[in-house]
Amino acid sequence: MAEAKVLSGAGLRGQVAGQTALSTVGQAGAGLTYRGYDVRELAADAQFEEVAYLLLYGELPTKTELAAYSAKLSKLRDLPLALKEVLERIPADAHPMDVMRTGCSFLGNLEPEQDFSVQRDVTDRLLAAFPAIMCYWYRFSHDGKRIDCVTDEPSIGGHFLHLLHGKAPSELHVKVMNVSLILYAEHEFNASTFTARVCASTLSDLYSCITAAIGSLRGPLHGGANEAAMEMIERFLSAEDAVDGTLAMLARKDKIMGFGHAIYKDCDPRNEVIKGWSKLLAEEVDDKVLFPVSEAIDKVMWEQKKLFPNADFYHASAYHFMGIPTKLFTPIFVCSRLTGWAAHVFEQRANNRIIRPSADYIGVEQRKFVPIERR
Amino acid sequence: MAEAKVLSGAGLRGQVAGQTALSTVGQAGAGLTYRGYDVRELAADAQFEEVAYLLLYGELPTKTELAAYSAKLSKLRDLPLALKEVLERIPADAHPMDVMRTGCSFLGNLEPEQDFSVQRDVTDRLLAAFPAIMCYWYRFSHDGKRIDCVTDEPSIGGHFLHLLHGKAPSELHVKVMNVSLILYAEHEFNASTFTARVCASTLSDLYSCITAAIGSLRGPLHGGANEAAMEMIERFLSAEDAVDGTLAMLARKDKIMGFGHAIYKDCDPRNEVIKGWSKLLAEEVDDKVLFPVSEAIDKVMWEQKKLFPNADFYHASAYHFMGIPTKLFTPIFVCSRLTGWAAHVFEQRANNRIIRPSADYIGVEQRKFVPIERR
Repeated sequence: MAEAKVLSGAGLRGQVAGQTALSTVGQAGAGLTYRGYDVRELAADAQFEEVAYLLLYGELPTKTELAAYSAKLSKLRDLPLALKEVLERIPADAHPMDVMRTGCSFLGNLEPEQDFSVQRDVTDRLLAAFPAIMCYWYRFSHDGKRIDCVTDEPSIGGHFLHLLHGKAPSELHVKVMNVSLILYAEHEFNASTFTARVCASTLSDLYSCITAAIGSLRGPLHGGANEAAMEMIERFLSAEDAVDGTLAMLARKDKIMGFGHAIYKDCDPRNEVIKGWSKLLAEEVDDKVLFPVSEAIDKVMWEQKKLFPNADFYHASAYHFMGIPTKLFTPIFVCSRLTGWAAHVFEQRANNRIIRPSADYIGVEQRKFVPIERR
Repeated sequence: MAEAKVLSGAGLRGQVAGQTALSTVGQAGAGLTYRGYDVRELAADAQFEEVAYLLLYGELPTKTELAAYSAKLSKLRDLPLALKEVLERIPADAHPMDVMRTGCSFLGNLEPEQDFSVQRDVTDRLLAAFPAIMCYWYRFSHDGKRIDCVTDEPSIGGHFLHLLHGKAPSELHVKVMNVSLILYAEHEFNASTFTARVCASTLSDLYSCITAAIGSLRGPLHGGANEAAMEMIERFLSAEDAVDGTLAMLARKDKIMGFGHAIYKDCDPRNEVIKGWSKLLAEEVDDKVLFPVSEAIDKVMWEQKKLFPNADFYHASAYHFMGIPTKLFTPIFVCSRLTGWAAHVFEQRANNRIIRPSADYIGVEQRKFVPIERR
């Protein structure tokens, strides 16, 4: 074997592991771009389905293209009976990310990706079906109800809220879900996306890549941060309580979730967007606790540690105000990031070499085998 | 963002992406070692359960330890009813690797890894249950039979053959399965193992890591090579036919599976071992075609291309002589490599930093969003 090159940092941090045309993260003057568009502009004026189309098909759709795409997605929402029967066999106390991982993997048995020419169709199917996978299991295991997986909601975000709550969502809630799905759609070579690309590099099928990515996103160092933020925010009774509590946590060196970022140094461009919407939702429900508590923690973290809230922190209160159970926060992330994952799989396939790094061996020297009788 | 370092090769080839004490691949004088032991010595004199113990627990077991370990594994072989019901809902024409991926993922819902202190118990459970996941689905979907998932076979290899064929295997077949499981157990930072480590680096659970690795191994550039080799070998009627056919394939620049290796340069140390056993099996069944055909292809590849057979090539005929359907070849690889994957997950967890590389952006320049009305 040729002498392997030792990388400077653990976790491949700062090391280029491939090329992408999908996004830039943390470049000067543009916090986060998807195919050249600032995520803040997309979140302000686009629908999530437009952004999905942009990532998966390469350009923003025209009105006609978007109408056709939305119609296609709407038709793909229902789940096969066998998948429903599988979801019914998952207990209520299962981790919802295990449910998503299993639902995605199982669907791959029923509707396999026959070859790469249908990769976009498989992605569209998953994009349409994921809200139902999550909500069918949740409503059956928690409420004993076999829900209808089809709604007439035009948007994926609205469809999700309708399935979850069993009724049409408000216009404001549909808008916030839309913004949230846009903000989480793509983020370069994060760990779950990189997992999908390593898997894709063996020329495995799309279900395997997405299933693998869901498994990575499940980790508390990755997708679980908005849930962890919610659990912390809920513990405080008022802004004053939150100030004292956060200072106490800092003094104890407790980990405070939802702040700072591996790549962004000064701010997370997604934060100002979701914070604004969370504030609006707080006003709508006349909240006097959660939002002030969130702002108080935010203020203490900046004053004490110069740490800024990332995309996850105000997502916690925003989701909560829309009546979403905390355990479903990360699965929503899946419904959104699926678009970025799949687009990265397409890229990897289009210019592939199997991703097979080397390791630095730190084990014992070679030794002679000793048969079990003489051990 | 700090300026990212551009690596010289695609696919991170030759780049150190972490440390391991588990194996060396292609180092001078030792083709492949597991924790310091030459894989050829292990394959000659150890049981697969000893090797699993070595990888997972750090040292070869004593007689007492091995007896206790084998007894533990034997008790963990049966599948929960809900998992059987899921497997019954997977069609006969599904890809067996999709079945393994789904079976592993589903079990994670029923028997979650509560915390990392039980990581070895979860691994042992999967090690014991994987043969039944594969065979229960296979026998139900192909023969309409609900098999008993428990046998009194002392070894995992024998247990698998017993479940598959519905009867006790011969001593020779048990021995060959044992050798095969040892040869495939561990191979440093190959793509599926690296997938498991990236997933583990988010501190996700073990089921997610193994499910992700199965998805990677499924790819034809990775685990599918023994199946592809079998499909090619089966096409030839005699050694002469194979010589002509292989030369014709080379002339057409067809890809010939089972030869050469990303890391090994002169030979794959696993090949001589499995080739010897395949020859013995051929004699046992008085084969006059498959083995001579395999040797003829082997000879042409060396003479024409100086390419050597890798671990997969003679595995094809060996498995075939034991009556194993070609589509189950890669799932056997899963039953074995699970040990290496899990041991790598333990290592990653013990000294973790989230694996999050950077990307080289090759997309469009930043551009202004155009509302859909004006597109």
